[in-house]
Amino acid sequence: MEKITSRENAKIKYACRLASSGAFRRSEGKFLAEGRKLCPELCRGAALETLFCTEAALEKCPELAGLPGEHYLVEDHVADKLADVGTHQGVFGIFRTPVHTLDEAKTGGRYLALERVQDPGNVGTLLRSAAAFGFDGVLLSDGCASVFAPKTLRASMGAAVRVPVMEVGAMPAAIAALRAKNITCLAAALYQSQPLSAARPGYPGGVCVVIGSEGQGLTEETIAACSGTVRIPMTDRVESLNAGIAGSILLWHFREESL
Amino acid sequence: MEKITSRENAKIKYACRLASSGAFRRSEGKFLAEGRKLCPELCRGAALETLFCTEAALEKCPELAGLPGEHYLVEDHVADKLADVGTHQGVFGIFRTPVHTLDEAKTGGRYLALERVQDPGNVGTLLRSAAAFGFDGVLLSDGCASVFAPKTLRASMGAAVRVPVMEVGAMPAAIAALRAKNITCLAAALYQSQPLSAARPGYPGGVCVVIGSEGQGLTEETIAACSGTVRIPMTDRVESLNAGIAGSILLWHFREESL
Repeated sequence: MEKITSRENAKIKYACRLASSGAFRRSEGKFLAEGRKLCPELCRGAALETLFCTEAALEKCPELAGLPGEHYLVEDHVADKLADVGTHQGVFGIFRTPVHTLDEAKTGGRYLALERVQDPGNVGTLLRSAAAFGFDGVLLSDGCASVFAPKTLRASMGAAVRVPVMEVGAMPAAIAALRAKNITCLAAALYQSQPLSAARPGYPGGVCVVIGSEGQGLTEETIAACSGTVRIPMTDRVESLNAGIAGSILLWHFREESL
Repeated sequence: MEKITSRENAKIKYACRLASSGAFRRSEGKFLAEGRKLCPELCRGAALETLFCTEAALEKCPELAGLPGEHYLVEDHVADKLADVGTHQGVFGIFRTPVHTLDEAKTGGRYLALERVQDPGNVGTLLRSAAAFGFDGVLLSDGCASVFAPKTLRASMGAAVRVPVMEVGAMPAAIAALRAKNITCLAAALYQSQPLSAARPGYPGGVCVVIGSEGQGLTEETIAACSGTVRIPMTDRVESLNAGIAGSILLWHFREESL
């Protein structure tokens, strides 16, 4: 296996650019992921093109050699450059980004739509919960944290490739497209909304749970575009719930019937 | 208002020790919190003894002057020493720790029990969800993240003083004490457990949801001490849920009836 010893190697620089730039990820249609468990996990839903491993990582996990794509050994100081955080496991993969469009959304399906959810941890957590509870796709508006950025990938634990992710630009038009397919779109909103406990667990035409940014919530245009609103009732002992928690409880409520 | 200009001031050193040492917090019965919103929020459930503010913070939030306790202005470099993270808002309070014991647990109540949950973010999040959904108390075993450590306080957003927290040592004996009061204790466990969707939303004698560590789950002794087990059913597209998410969904299921 070829060994990369220089941080200036062209493949390493390319991989680093994928990790740091959303625009570059989009134009190349690829992303970089890190992790001994995460990389094999991502192979279940995305094509691995290039794998970089330190010798120590390969010794610890010889099964990595069985993954597809081109493989390279990298020296520790090169691995440090590939990592976006100080601690890493010495395993990095360049994957082809799965591409999905709103046309794939179908009557009777379950969807999650995120408008301007900026925290990568919240986006990753919600993707993981959507995959866990049998959702058929996740819509992301402009202004959301990038699904294939290193932090989001870590928080989603690979769910980013197990549930179709659709970048939809502005949310109101996307909501209108779902409603044209008879999908009931419910805005998570604090005011003038029905408590979740009173909401039906499912809708024959399908359902889309629509969640807004941590600070501002949903835009008025998006709330107006939805079929209705829903909220999680709480005691007055707290002001709010964490966005990832609140969203996951909504997803649990509208989970796949078999669960 | 007296101004503290030295990082070596005895009150400052005392406050820093409260922030960094769980043993010192316990022996003194006090804790240190940081935040422009968090400190006033904590006053709703704990006695504020000393408040430290930078001039900038007091200008921005003059209402801080209305809080109880002794007040001190602190220079910026002194505030930096009080903060456990780089960014802070220049507002710090020393509070008396509310003390609760297992004797307070009563038949018909709702409880959350955490065994060796080590991540302060997860402990804080679960406290916040427990307060939101009307729980009457939270039991913490040895080995859990400290509720009154700076990170946990931030994640709980003040819920640490809005729901009684009881340190119970070893969990199996605490579970036995609850069961003696007719409280049904349900262990969150992956194996040989009933799906949450099949669990009743409430029990006449009360309920306690028992959650284990992020990596290992509950100890066998604790599972054996419980009345039964429960799990959150999931598709096979993910391996697990985040501990804070899974716990919060359980708390939502067993929420106060009025919600």
